[in-house]
Amino acid sequence: MSIKELILGKPLKNNEISHEKLTRLWGLPIMASDAVSSVAYAIEEILLILVPAVGILAFHSLPYIDLPILLLLGILVLSYSQIIDHYPRGGGAYAVAQENIGKTAALLSAAALTIDYIMTVAVSISSSTAALVSAFPGLRDHKVMISLVCVALITLINLRGVREASKVFGLPTYIFIASMGILILCGLYKLFTGTLAPIEYGGGILPAETMQGIGILVLLKAFSSGCSAMSGVEAVSDAVPSFAAPSTRNAKHVLYILGTIIIFIFGGTSILAMRLQVVPLEGHTVLSQISAAVFGHTFMYYVIQVFTSLILILAANTAYNGLPQLLYILAHDGYVPRQFSSRGTKLSFSNGIIFIFIAAAALIIGFQSEVHALIPLYSVGVFVSFTIAQYGMFKKWRIMKEKGWQYKCWINGFGAIVTAVVSVIVFCMKFVDGAWILAIALPVLMFGMYSVNKYYSKIGEQLKLEKFHPYYDKEIVRSTQCIVLIHDINKPFLKAINYANSISNNITALHVCRHPEHAQELRQKWADLKMPVPLEIIETPYRDIIHPMDEYLWKRERALNHGENISVILIKFITEHRFDNLLHNQTTYFVSQHLSKHKNVSTVIIPFHYIWDDKLFGELEDRK
Amino acid sequence: MSIKELILGKPLKNNEISHEKLTRLWGLPIMASDAVSSVAYAIEEILLILVPAVGILAFHSLPYIDLPILLLLGILVLSYSQIIDHYPRGGGAYAVAQENIGKTAALLSAAALTIDYIMTVAVSISSSTAALVSAFPGLRDHKVMISLVCVALITLINLRGVREASKVFGLPTYIFIASMGILILCGLYKLFTGTLAPIEYGGGILPAETMQGIGILVLLKAFSSGCSAMSGVEAVSDAVPSFAAPSTRNAKHVLYILGTIIIFIFGGTSILAMRLQVVPLEGHTVLSQISAAVFGHTFMYYVIQVFTSLILILAANTAYNGLPQLLYILAHDGYVPRQFSSRGTKLSFSNGIIFIFIAAAALIIGFQSEVHALIPLYSVGVFVSFTIAQYGMFKKWRIMKEKGWQYKCWINGFGAIVTAVVSVIVFCMKFVDGAWILAIALPVLMFGMYSVNKYYSKIGEQLKLEKFHPYYDKEIVRSTQCIVLIHDINKPFLKAINYANSISNNITALHVCRHPEHAQELRQKWADLKMPVPLEIIETPYRDIIHPMDEYLWKRERALNHGENISVILIKFITEHRFDNLLHNQTTYFVSQHLSKHKNVSTVIIPFHYIWDDKLFGELEDRK
Repeated sequence: MSIKELILGKPLKNNEISHEKLTRLWGLPIMASDAVSSVAYAIEEILLILVPAVGILAFHSLPYIDLPILLLLGILVLSYSQIIDHYPRGGGAYAVAQENIGKTAALLSAAALTIDYIMTVAVSISSSTAALVSAFPGLRDHKVMISLVCVALITLINLRGVREASKVFGLPTYIFIASMGILILCGLYKLFTGTLAPIEYGGGILPAETMQGIGILVLLKAFSSGCSAMSGVEAVSDAVPSFAAPSTRNAKHVLYILGTIIIFIFGGTSILAMRLQVVPLEGHTVLSQISAAVFGHTFMYYVIQVFTSLILILAANTAYNGLPQLLYILAHDGYVPRQFSSRGTKLSFSNGIIFIFIAAAALIIGFQSEVHALIPLYSVGVFVSFTIAQYGMFKKWRIMKEKGWQYKCWINGFGAIVTAVVSVIVFCMKFVDGAWILAIALPVLMFGMYSVNKYYSKIGEQLKLEKFHPYYDKEIVRSTQCIVLIHDINKPFLKAINYANSISNNITALHVCRHPEHAQELRQKWADLKMPVPLEIIETPYRDIIHPMDEYLWKRERALNHGENISVILIKFITEHRFDNLLHNQTTYFVSQHLSKHKNVSTVIIPFHYIWDDKLFGELEDRK
Repeated sequence: MSIKELILGKPLKNNEISHEKLTRLWGLPIMASDAVSSVAYAIEEILLILVPAVGILAFHSLPYIDLPILLLLGILVLSYSQIIDHYPRGGGAYAVAQENIGKTAALLSAAALTIDYIMTVAVSISSSTAALVSAFPGLRDHKVMISLVCVALITLINLRGVREASKVFGLPTYIFIASMGILILCGLYKLFTGTLAPIEYGGGILPAETMQGIGILVLLKAFSSGCSAMSGVEAVSDAVPSFAAPSTRNAKHVLYILGTIIIFIFGGTSILAMRLQVVPLEGHTVLSQISAAVFGHTFMYYVIQVFTSLILILAANTAYNGLPQLLYILAHDGYVPRQFSSRGTKLSFSNGIIFIFIAAAALIIGFQSEVHALIPLYSVGVFVSFTIAQYGMFKKWRIMKEKGWQYKCWINGFGAIVTAVVSVIVFCMKFVDGAWILAIALPVLMFGMYSVNKYYSKIGEQLKLEKFHPYYDKEIVRSTQCIVLIHDINKPFLKAINYANSISNNITALHVCRHPEHAQELRQKWADLKMPVPLEIIETPYRDIIHPMDEYLWKRERALNHGENISVILIKFITEHRFDNLLHNQTTYFVSQHLSKHKNVSTVIIPFHYIWDDKLFGELEDRK
């Protein structure tokens, strides 16, 4: 039918929404792509800090960093599963903070998550473009354009509906997970059978062991870098209602499976990296070195290479599921424009999806799709929201005091402290490189949400009607006074005056006079025809219709009695072709825009159809 | 007050128009700038053809070319003065053709003149930019930009009103005319006193005298080049109503003075060029050589140089007086959009002026402000309109047979033949270089005007009302059925239902249901409040309000009785700040756009003012 349908597919009915919900099978990859992709690079992040600082010692100290991360991951998975239980509407940290901490914390987590989701899109698309550009240097000048096209594509697929998107993005994620599984299992098998030896580098690549051992600062830095493995865990809790019924149960299962996968991949690659003593090299990632060591340059090696590149684009897709749902909840609570709460033709929150596109595209253009410029703004937000969620749950348990609350308090309290520390470290480390922008953007976004909320509350207060009857039942005789704008005595005027007769006994024809000669002519005709309604002519010395009419209406309004109002009747000329409008003055449009400032005046627009309007108003006619 | 006022100055009242009319003193330079500037270069055009072809013989044959041109000029001035007499509404050749020849000829002359006026602007601005750029080569890259700024400036000055423009552009034109007068008088004096000898050029510059004498083709070519001296004569006749009363008399006087000036300048420079035997050189125009010979490199020489450059920009200004008036007449006759017939705040035809700006800017951008690319399209149009005007007057005399008609017929018949020949020669000579574009543009423009006229006639036919009484007096009981769109029972709804009560006894509340739960709630409230009007709820499975409402209205329309119509009441939320609209759905706007396709349905828009609307519709309140 239309271009929209061609691009987005047939619209879906409201009751088809259950088909659009995520099953566990397809929900997992959608929710996992972000988390899994960040895990794949976490071990590299740790080694990038450790190896230059302490040399070979890095591999011995790796467990002291990995085990706390695994522990924290476990805590997060457990507590987010409880968040899902208690907040089945979704919204994750925002919902927790809203209920248990307060508005400010809720807005902070909402703003932080919003920024982080958008950063996820911008960063992952930009880095996949960077990979493409380094393979085909000829494309270097078109980097921004390529990134924009990628974002547009992902946006389009998501606009076609959750179901469709999950199928498109699900399979590659599964293949990536499976190939990582094979890599780790094969690697571990070879380790135990003793066929895997540490990688030999030429001299000088591995820095000499430092004498003073490992400083606490280096450990903390490495730890917080490794914490990036956790980002993506929150997405499931944000999007609970996107899952098929029973949604909380499905969401929780997906979260558990996701947690297991993350722990398995992170743990597995850690062990392999430790035993292989992998040194991160420019252009040869840790993951690529591990898979080369395990498989040699066989088919499987290339599968891993291709799908680790691919998973970067897919990571962007998680944002398309988490953020629109979050914005829906924020819109429902009145913190962002209401438009985010309505579903599009394919039952997805299309306004939220389009918002991601616009924001991510702006970032990509603003930062010229440079990954190293975008990275500092990334992943601070998610830790802020972790901290808030943990602290919120901690407070919740203390107040609710349900079975085993002390135990739960300990867990979430510990989680809150650790994630708070990580937030601070990550923020400080990246501050100079660009995270300072967040120190501005977060408060601005929070203030924006706060203002929107204030506005909506004020509006809501004004719309509210305590009692309906007293006003409506009052014995007021209501009537309207009609003012028909007239240019000439012609068919449209006849249609207007006929309509006026159907609604009022008090009709005035009003001519705003630009050309005195024309007004004189009109007055003459009026007298000749003995028109049964009075004609008023007002002068417009400056050829402007709005102001003299305004004056006239203020005067008429002041003379109204109780129960009376004014209706101004305008004719709208309906042309066959849009282009024909150029040949008509758009006076009706401008006048109607201005009339609304008169509270006691309503604007009546009567259509006059050119070409196929030969019958008059009031005469019956069939639908074309 | 506003930015508009800052730029354009205070608006003028209708009755101030007499102050805006051109007096003879200021009308002359406005109308003369185009004609005078083309005269200044006409002699050069002739010599550029003659000298390379026949060498020294050129100067002997010059009178055989100049005298016919002067004769033709005289004929044109005389016949245009008669056109002014007979067509005081202005419009020149168009008006003549419309009355005496026919629609096609009228449209041809209108299209030709329109194109030529716009070309005048584009060419004269581009050549003054070219002069500037050759003086400051650093500006070469900004040529187009400079031209656009110049056009914008001239447009702005003209938007400020005819009076203001005539003062700004008048003085330099007078200075130019005066300095040309001084040049010619001094030159002639020196000639007679014998102190002026032919300019000495180094050997080889002047081509040897050719043996075969002068061919007829060369003479014709030189003649038609020289005819460019005449362009600009028609402007006065186009803009007769711009002159102060008595406008025809003033216009005619201006035309006579203009004719005298042209003849004097053209004749004077011809004699000087002939006696000085000036050879046109690259970068040293004929005019510059003459003034150097007469004055030496004194102050007067530089005055002439500066003002000949300046007159080029001013030439553009003639178009701003001729074309808007022509467009006004065309709009009045329904050949171009009606908007061209209304006067702006400063009583100038601002739409026509803006049209010139847009068209000239498009040409300048399209041709990259290259004079040699624009020139071939220039000056064909004016000769076409001369021919049509002459032929039209010829026919007029033959039909009217007023005193001395045979004599007038001879003059205009001769004028028609000569201008027709010149038109053909000019068109053919420039065809390959770009005049072929005119062969497309002219018919396209004519067809456009024809279509617009057809459209307006059709529309006018449909609006016409032969008799008013029969419809109006019919004993039909007219009534309206109200449909109030409801979202919730709140203050805006109360305002709407109160209004509905004032115009109708048949009220339905209509809810288009996007969220079934909400509809259920509304139904319950409705029952609880025992609302006295029926509530109808229609489902919208695809979350789209327009289509289900359309269906509903078609059904209601079909059920209407004779004399009945439908009023759909919409609430328009009026916010304090424009930006706040982002926080509201624009449903009212979209719905009202679509309702107009129902011929029996009128749309009533009731304003609901946020922030300062605490009283209800029907209650009185004072103007804020």
